[in-house]
Amino acid sequence: MHKTPPEHPLDTHSAPTSPDRTPARRVALVGFGTVGRAVAKILCERKNKDGDSLLRFTHICNRNFERKKQPWVPGDVIWTDDFGAILSSDVDIVIELIGGLTPAEDLVRSALKAGKSVVTANKQLIARHGPDLLQLASANRCRLEFGASVAGGVPVLPALRTGLSGDRLHGIAGILNGTCNYILSRIETDRIPFSEALEEAQARGYAEADASEDLDGGDARAKLSILALAGLQVRVAPADIRARTIRPIEAIDFDYSAELGCTIRQISRADLKDATLFAEVGPSLVPTSSPFGRVQKNLNLVLTSGEYGGDVAFLGAGAGGDPTAVAVVSDLIVIARSAAGSARPHLQLASPKISCDFETPWYLRFVVKDQPGIIARLAAILSAHQLNIDAILQKPGFEKSSLPFVITLEPSRDAQLHPALQEMSALPFALRPCLCLPILR
Amino acid sequence: MHKTPPEHPLDTHSAPTSPDRTPARRVALVGFGTVGRAVAKILCERKNKDGDSLLRFTHICNRNFERKKQPWVPGDVIWTDDFGAILSSDVDIVIELIGGLTPAEDLVRSALKAGKSVVTANKQLIARHGPDLLQLASANRCRLEFGASVAGGVPVLPALRTGLSGDRLHGIAGILNGTCNYILSRIETDRIPFSEALEEAQARGYAEADASEDLDGGDARAKLSILALAGLQVRVAPADIRARTIRPIEAIDFDYSAELGCTIRQISRADLKDATLFAEVGPSLVPTSSPFGRVQKNLNLVLTSGEYGGDVAFLGAGAGGDPTAVAVVSDLIVIARSAAGSARPHLQLASPKISCDFETPWYLRFVVKDQPGIIARLAAILSAHQLNIDAILQKPGFEKSSLPFVITLEPSRDAQLHPALQEMSALPFALRPCLCLPILR
Repeated sequence: MHKTPPEHPLDTHSAPTSPDRTPARRVALVGFGTVGRAVAKILCERKNKDGDSLLRFTHICNRNFERKKQPWVPGDVIWTDDFGAILSSDVDIVIELIGGLTPAEDLVRSALKAGKSVVTANKQLIARHGPDLLQLASANRCRLEFGASVAGGVPVLPALRTGLSGDRLHGIAGILNGTCNYILSRIETDRIPFSEALEEAQARGYAEADASEDLDGGDARAKLSILALAGLQVRVAPADIRARTIRPIEAIDFDYSAELGCTIRQISRADLKDATLFAEVGPSLVPTSSPFGRVQKNLNLVLTSGEYGGDVAFLGAGAGGDPTAVAVVSDLIVIARSAAGSARPHLQLASPKISCDFETPWYLRFVVKDQPGIIARLAAILSAHQLNIDAILQKPGFEKSSLPFVITLEPSRDAQLHPALQEMSALPFALRPCLCLPILR
Repeated sequence: MHKTPPEHPLDTHSAPTSPDRTPARRVALVGFGTVGRAVAKILCERKNKDGDSLLRFTHICNRNFERKKQPWVPGDVIWTDDFGAILSSDVDIVIELIGGLTPAEDLVRSALKAGKSVVTANKQLIARHGPDLLQLASANRCRLEFGASVAGGVPVLPALRTGLSGDRLHGIAGILNGTCNYILSRIETDRIPFSEALEEAQARGYAEADASEDLDGGDARAKLSILALAGLQVRVAPADIRARTIRPIEAIDFDYSAELGCTIRQISRADLKDATLFAEVGPSLVPTSSPFGRVQKNLNLVLTSGEYGGDVAFLGAGAGGDPTAVAVVSDLIVIARSAAGSARPHLQLASPKISCDFETPWYLRFVVKDQPGIIARLAAILSAHQLNIDAILQKPGFEKSSLPFVITLEPSRDAQLHPALQEMSALPFALRPCLCLPILR
């Protein structure tokens, strides 16, 4: 077993002088896309500037690697398309940056089985198979780190295992999807239509041609599942977290939200109460003055709530090659500073009941064909379900043929509201289903 | 040497099942004040709820401990006023929460020399003797952690050695003193006089009777020195960092700042450029829409700027027993999970030139006995020093006998501005020295 140089803030860029330090760990990079290139750049620059006593960059693995070769990669780094060659080499740490489940899952499993530690930015892989893969790493006396899998440039996952480890967290909430935040903050700023904001995000490379994973919450709930795993020690499958789409949000919703002192963001949140994990992802009203309300463009924000330390917020770039690469290289450094070959204690994860039945105030936005008696009908339905109206907002200047207006409700449970929503959306004057957003305070 | 359980987010509260794990580390607490009590509470609750396989709380050391005894501290914790008894015991980790330099420095040195790791929240001790004490710890194969010494509830120091370790930081800035931020944000909100805001802070326990260390920047520059050490790998003595007081700030300065889209905060900042560390602490104009501009009450915010990852912000409670205790217990956990008895690599700290000669735009607020030709005189002096006026702001409604108005300057260096300030403050119509604040963008 190697000796362990202890972690310390001061040895980040320090040159080696201690006689009994660990030899540099040999690092192979698998997947040479945007993040892979950025990781390679940092590793090469560390070597050029400091000599890098911790990490030795040995392999790059990618299909058709001949077309990928870069002049700034030193000649002693081996390019290959054969992952088997890495498995059978003396590489200590494999960086998996292929993404997706296939073939990434097989590669990660085979690396761990070969006793090689793995650093990955693969949120889908960790969200679905994180607990299993961690046990596999433990059984093979190596490590699995995934700090880049959530909010790449925001060091929240490392904080959960260091500076916040002394607290007992009960809640995590975040703006975890930069695409949604870009679109919503663009609508907020210039009151442009949703479709225009989406096209702009696509043109700038913030959204893919098929942006469903972003818009409909699939991306964010995978990240929330990882945060809940690491911060709340619970096992929750992404598919068990309700995700609401941001597609129905329109400029008018920002006008009405502003009257309530709020704006709209895609919020992912998980609260552990007794044996239930309340979790969901979706567009929500947040106070304009809150940390969430102020997150612009494609930034990410994560807020943790602890029994002792209260709320802590982390803000930074959520994606992008360089910020994500920092998270990857930071994980490499943490592994390189730790003892090689030590076993990890068995994981104790709770498997709570998963619920989306939050109790909050609500924002209901209707679009109706105007006629007498609409408010009376809606009020009667709400009243029949024991739901209390807090305010009715109706801005002037809309056509009677398609009139948007808003009712806000006092706090009530999601499950209590749901049947009322169905009844109201079925009324003959309702041109569209009612848009229902929680109001977070 | 003990075997090392690797750090991992998932083992935070996990029960032990691995057969070869480290035995719980024995922990002694020295100093049973507000933070000490809060640390003891968390340690006792960890034991009650989880058994706590990592930490075993064995001693509490305080003068007149009989008066301090608490019913919720288990009977097997030894109370003592004799630090020597702890030194000669089998305690693994000493928590130093006495504060100040005497006798804390001697206690910490003797603990480290006895091979006991130390966790401290003592900013003065680390700011002045951090590098020495770290070397002492290294020489005695034990650890010194001080995550609670800066912005107690904000896990920025742990992030510097984990999630940000892969970046190359060039700047750190922060709101590091909750007292100043409370006072300034109170003046901002209600336009009360400085003296009233200070009295309110004292009444609420946010400021001490003699608040000089807070108001005049002594507290913040000690913290900035620690952040520069841990994040920029530089050695800078607190006394070498210029500190400007917040005492001359008045409600009118918030009125003029608002016209510039700004508010005023005590900002501590350090920028490493080539072989120079630009550093200072003092009241500064920041955009109302910036992360700094939005920090209210006694919260702390730290912003790091990296070559690869860009800006990352951390926001949380800066002080208070419970948040600071979380930082202390988190440090205990990090030590308990690391290998015992391993040596730390020799530290490589740079000792750059220290300068406060930032180049920024400036806010100059004059209070004059009004008479013809004032602007012309000031403009002539500024012009003679090659300083360009950006705007002149003068609000109506003030007595001619004591008229406050503002000149803003285009970016210029501090050293260039200083002689002009002296000349202007000596003019016969100047009732007070000109208040000069940098405008941070």
